[in-house]
Amino acid sequence: MLRYLSAGESHGKCLIVILEAMPAGLPLSIEFINQELKKRLSGYGRGPRSKGIEDDKIEFLSGVRKNVTLGSPIAMRIKNRDYKIDVLGEISKPRPGHADLAGALKYNQKDIRNILERSSARETAVRVAVGAVCKLFLNEFGVDILSHVVSIGGVEADTKDLAFSEIKKRADKSSLRCADKTAEKLMRREIDKIKGEKDTLGGTFEIMAKGVPAGIGSHVHYDRKLDGRLALALMSIQAIKGVEIGLGFDAAQRAGSDVHDEIYYQKTKGFYHKTNNAGGIEGGMSNGEPIVVRCAMKPIPTLMEPLASVDINSKKPFRAQVERSDTTAVPAAAIVAESAVSFELVKGYLDKFGGDSMDELKRNFKGYIGQIKKF
Amino acid sequence: MLRYLSAGESHGKCLIVILEAMPAGLPLSIEFINQELKKRLSGYGRGPRSKGIEDDKIEFLSGVRKNVTLGSPIAMRIKNRDYKIDVLGEISKPRPGHADLAGALKYNQKDIRNILERSSARETAVRVAVGAVCKLFLNEFGVDILSHVVSIGGVEADTKDLAFSEIKKRADKSSLRCADKTAEKLMRREIDKIKGEKDTLGGTFEIMAKGVPAGIGSHVHYDRKLDGRLALALMSIQAIKGVEIGLGFDAAQRAGSDVHDEIYYQKTKGFYHKTNNAGGIEGGMSNGEPIVVRCAMKPIPTLMEPLASVDINSKKPFRAQVERSDTTAVPAAAIVAESAVSFELVKGYLDKFGGDSMDELKRNFKGYIGQIKKF
Amino acid sequence: MLRYLSAGESHGKCLIVILEAMPAGLPLSIEFINQELKKRLSGYGRGPRSKGIEDDKIEFLSGVRKNVTLGSPIAMRIKNRDYKIDVLGEISKPRPGHADLAGALKYNQKDIRNILERSSARETAVRVAVGAVCKLFLNEFGVDILSHVVSIGGVEADTKDLAFSEIKKRADKSSLRCADKTAEKLMRREIDKIKGEKDTLGGTFEIMAKGVPAGIGSHVHYDRKLDGRLALALMSIQAIKGVEIGLGFDAAQRAGSDVHDEIYYQKTKGFYHKTNNAGGIEGGMSNGEPIVVRCAMKPIPTLMEPLASVDINSKKPFRAQVERSDTTAVPAAAIVAESAVSFELVKGYLDKFGGDSMDELKRNFKGYIGQIKKF
Amino acid sequence: MLRYLSAGESHGKCLIVILEAMPAGLPLSIEFINQELKKRLSGYGRGPRSKGIEDDKIEFLSGVRKNVTLGSPIAMRIKNRDYKIDVLGEISKPRPGHADLAGALKYNQKDIRNILERSSARETAVRVAVGAVCKLFLNEFGVDILSHVVSIGGVEADTKDLAFSEIKKRADKSSLRCADKTAEKLMRREIDKIKGEKDTLGGTFEIMAKGVPAGIGSHVHYDRKLDGRLALALMSIQAIKGVEIGLGFDAAQRAGSDVHDEIYYQKTKGFYHKTNNAGGIEGGMSNGEPIVVRCAMKPIPTLMEPLASVDINSKKPFRAQVERSDTTAVPAAAIVAESAVSFELVKGYLDKFGGDSMDELKRNFKGYIGQIKKF
Repeated sequence: MLRYLSAGESHGKCLIVILEAMPAGLPLSIEFINQELKKRLSGYGRGPRSKGIEDDKIEFLSGVRKNVTLGSPIAMRIKNRDYKIDVLGEISKPRPGHADLAGALKYNQKDIRNILERSSARETAVRVAVGAVCKLFLNEFGVDILSHVVSIGGVEADTKDLAFSEIKKRADKSSLRCADKTAEKLMRREIDKIKGEKDTLGGTFEIMAKGVPAGIGSHVHYDRKLDGRLALALMSIQAIKGVEIGLGFDAAQRAGSDVHDEIYYQKTKGFYHKTNNAGGIEGGMSNGEPIVVRCAMKPIPTLMEPLASVDINSKKPFRAQVERSDTTAVPAAAIVAESAVSFELVKGYLDKFGGDSMDELKRNFKGYIGQIKKF
Repeated sequence: MLRYLSAGESHGKCLIVILEAMPAGLPLSIEFINQELKKRLSGYGRGPRSKGIEDDKIEFLSGVRKNVTLGSPIAMRIKNRDYKIDVLGEISKPRPGHADLAGALKYNQKDIRNILERSSARETAVRVAVGAVCKLFLNEFGVDILSHVVSIGGVEADTKDLAFSEIKKRADKSSLRCADKTAEKLMRREIDKIKGEKDTLGGTFEIMAKGVPAGIGSHVHYDRKLDGRLALALMSIQAIKGVEIGLGFDAAQRAGSDVHDEIYYQKTKGFYHKTNNAGGIEGGMSNGEPIVVRCAMKPIPTLMEPLASVDINSKKPFRAQVERSDTTAVPAAAIVAESAVSFELVKGYLDKFGGDSMDELKRNFKGYIGQIKKF
Repeated sequence: MLRYLSAGESHGKCLIVILEAMPAGLPLSIEFINQELKKRLSGYGRGPRSKGIEDDKIEFLSGVRKNVTLGSPIAMRIKNRDYKIDVLGEISKPRPGHADLAGALKYNQKDIRNILERSSARETAVRVAVGAVCKLFLNEFGVDILSHVVSIGGVEADTKDLAFSEIKKRADKSSLRCADKTAEKLMRREIDKIKGEKDTLGGTFEIMAKGVPAGIGSHVHYDRKLDGRLALALMSIQAIKGVEIGLGFDAAQRAGSDVHDEIYYQKTKGFYHKTNNAGGIEGGMSNGEPIVVRCAMKPIPTLMEPLASVDINSKKPFRAQVERSDTTAVPAAAIVAESAVSFELVKGYLDKFGGDSMDELKRNFKGYIGQIKKF
Repeated sequence: MLRYLSAGESHGKCLIVILEAMPAGLPLSIEFINQELKKRLSGYGRGPRSKGIEDDKIEFLSGVRKNVTLGSPIAMRIKNRDYKIDVLGEISKPRPGHADLAGALKYNQKDIRNILERSSARETAVRVAVGAVCKLFLNEFGVDILSHVVSIGGVEADTKDLAFSEIKKRADKSSLRCADKTAEKLMRREIDKIKGEKDTLGGTFEIMAKGVPAGIGSHVHYDRKLDGRLALALMSIQAIKGVEIGLGFDAAQRAGSDVHDEIYYQKTKGFYHKTNNAGGIEGGMSNGEPIVVRCAMKPIPTLMEPLASVDINSKKPFRAQVERSDTTAVPAAAIVAESAVSFELVKGYLDKFGGDSMDELKRNFKGYIGQIKKF
């Protein structure tokens, strides 16, 4: 069963991750992984720190030889440019909207730095590295995946008439991962405005994965359902407060006849649907249509116009300090989410197809595709 | 680590669940558990089958002696009144919106009954039983939990001025678990109308848990975050397509200064917040405020006015058969969700407080409460 | 990932188990499972209770339809004939060699019955049921498995010149699962003698599994090694105090040249070994030779000539009470161990070959066998 | 739940491990950890490579600040001095007694280096680092742990009259971790002799842990039993072929009256035993007496006098190559095993006592000790 443990503090030496149970024989491209890392750092509305460390680079410490996976655990490291955790001073002022206070209470820490260094979204860099490896895997099975920003500060993108490939191309070119140029312009204006008000913005984004056959995940036990696993993977990303699949919350407003995807059949295609309101998941399993998931991100909780809080030592009120000053990080979160989805899909593939080598996995996969084609 | 496995088919002998790692010494009330089961079956808009089996009753098979937990695995059984799985005929017609087709392909089953018997929401009965045991546990630690229906078919309840206890009382009395009488009336009207159209409705509901101290869950690793775990638990419930915490998707529309909950302190109360936009969870941990989660449920996918589909044997199109005829099941899903949240909270308590007996757990809990009070 | 939870107390209503993740399409034979259960209860040297309940019978509660697995969780129940846990009196006298005292302290139970009802080896009945299902699975892949008693009370069986099938046949016929008739006679004499002395005996037994291809388990992470998993599965059986694989402890006494199995190749056979000192496992993986594991069982800790202990209430010394009066249970433990090994092997097969249906698994398996044949 | 993932190849850049869920506030000593690493590399009978890299040193990459744990994942790295995996040539000759052949078949690797680099016992260096951290934890709760070599090449040490502290002191001073000087001398002679014969030796060793209270582990489910968990942890160490607890295999030879530890009580001590044949574990739980476990290690499978094998490409027989030339590594394995036991004990402590900070854990622990004292 595919699994990983990540480690590292925001101003520690590095971020590190061990990814266990990837099959042997998968070619990896450091360039591709580094590109993905770069995407996480870019985006209009980021502050100077994000930009300063814009050259996050992965280093393989194990599990890979001559750029091909060995089947043994893959350790990846991203060095931190501003390693200074040991000399940084104590913090007694918890910031609203962060893990600061709850973490200090739980772990009995009077220096809040001991909490915020780990709770920081800096950790998501290695989630992106894991996701990049997973994308290379999925690519071998014809799966393509994208993320794009749907809304920022109330401005909504309109992508309903765009093909998958078009959304992907446009999002990758956009400074806000937004596939709707007009909306992007308005979003940037909104960001500039809110920045002037020393405030911050959240938004929503969408992940789509194309090429996943029916049968990933399972209906038989709650913790094996693909929708549940995706929800955990996404809701656990810093600042995510909502996850929806397919129509999501909108499905709750419609009549059943306007929601459920009817089933069709063509000899060449097999079974298919003309709509995808389910977002590609029915009964906890992929149904052959693209997986479509959307997330809501709250605004960045560190404002230049700070918020009321209380010093944990003196118990005196204060105005919360600014540790970081991005105005919005929605495009970055979209990349992290795309990575999280990629990981969960690979996990699902390995659960279904087993396999210790790519040769074996492809043989098993091909056998299954034949089975459902002839079904 | 608290865990459970559930088993059982919709028309099989029974539903069954084994709940492992509950501490010894917790008094259980069969009456309470049966009441919870009853709540799951009630609700305006249910069809005849739900009503016919309205007397779901739990039986303890193990783990309990003289109505007190032993610390050993708790097995619970709910008998099915209409056990007939072995005599029921084959099904070759997959219903849109169900696990039918994806499950048949995945498990290579030409008789779709072999899928739908397990994917059925009938399984949630034992999730409610598990949740009821968990509520009895949480009660010993001063945690109170509720669920209420927020919208059905576009009609929204207004509960923003109601206290926790008031919402709970009203929801328990309402035929739709709705705490707003006016809205309830309109919802019923909407249900009647859609039933006349042979269609179905979904909706949204909210779970609230009061009395959870700061520090349940953890920020240190993605799979230990309370929000992620809740998301998995909820998204894996049949027909749930969206989960949000606190402001949820609405947070994506607001400025940061309008979202983050400021921190205050009073000697008697300790740290607290005046708002709860975070829904009680920051950094993957409870922050001491009530946990607030909302879910979106899609309309029931079995319509009396059926949908287009294709026979898996003949490959001929047909109009999907009606297997069941509830018009809406939002109130039932709310109870299931309340149960799922209860389970995840107990898991979080045991992770944090350890303990094999209730005496030990309470001692550890009390020590922690003292720690954070003096912090 | 294959998993199970078991539940049930010794004098409770029943024993119950849920086995999750067995593929769909495996035919099950109730008769076979009941035969296995019967084997667990037989054996020379058992006391009256074991005999009285000699008719343990499995009932499927879920996961099976028309005697074929559905892919959904399989719940099995064995009713207890002497259900009386609720009326049995309190016990304050811990028996040496049992979980009694440690369990009472851990779970803070003043009535030791609350511990011993679960720690009892009665629980192993459902482990045998799980094992029987697993044997039916393994059988489909050409794996055969046996257990036989190697020593009781110092009397050693000599089976070194016997073929697998011969050991299996003889063990199944023997009153002590012993494949050496002469030794069996001496063992029975030893049992009679020790019974006369109101004492008890332990012994050793061996499990062998034939037909497992190279590559089950993995060398890449400690918790995926087949030898480690088998060791957990076996050491966790009541009264087992030692586990060894292949030569085991004897390997520690020999020179390397006398231990390691040399590698040979024949076109028809592929790679093979002429010796099997490794017991079929090298580097945490099966190596294509039969898996051979041996366990040591301590004597039954309940003696008719009782042992010194202390009442937990009065703190007064007493002589430990007799709860049960088998003289030896080594043949029964051998069956339980055979079942535990079967479960771990199936887990290993599913990890390697994936698969949700038997068709798919067989296709994947066949592909792999072809791969290693052509390697 | 405490967990770790390890990574790294024998001639890769480094070995790396992430240890997740250690509580905050545990002071760590790099010196202590490095001493433990040094112990793993020493021992009479080691070859030149082991000596050449005698200066394994740990580096903390995360989870620790100012030498105190943060509660976040602890990443530790040990650099490899002879990093050259990318330039090393292909290997087509599998060595008997290693993972080589089974691994090549399983992972479909024609270059056996891709297997042996990970299956190498070099990986145990990070298991020792994890164990060292765990020992520092256990030390805070008054637990002391030791390992000592019991036999090499048939020479048995006699330590039955030695106190725990005496065995520990002597083992730490001995070139073979042997607490019996006379036996040590004979063992060295045996090693010299076998080295002259170009052969290798295995042996047995014992782990003892003192100060563990009753109640670690659990009787309620097989996979929570302390003996089972220890067995997995130990059997998964390279070259270990047998594990026994307390009397172990010897218990299978004795009468019950000669095996089970009688129970006594003294006001100051509470419940105790005068013997420890159970090795401190009854019913899957610690019983308050020292934990005593023994392992059998097979001889090192790389002989200077090589063994018959077959080239995987040419299918021609050859004599297996020498990759490494220790004569025995029993003292090193003992240290690895001591580390593995330490990890499992800490896991057991966290399961029982919960706790996110050392303060909290100690408070909970103290409460429990009070409970069992007053029981």
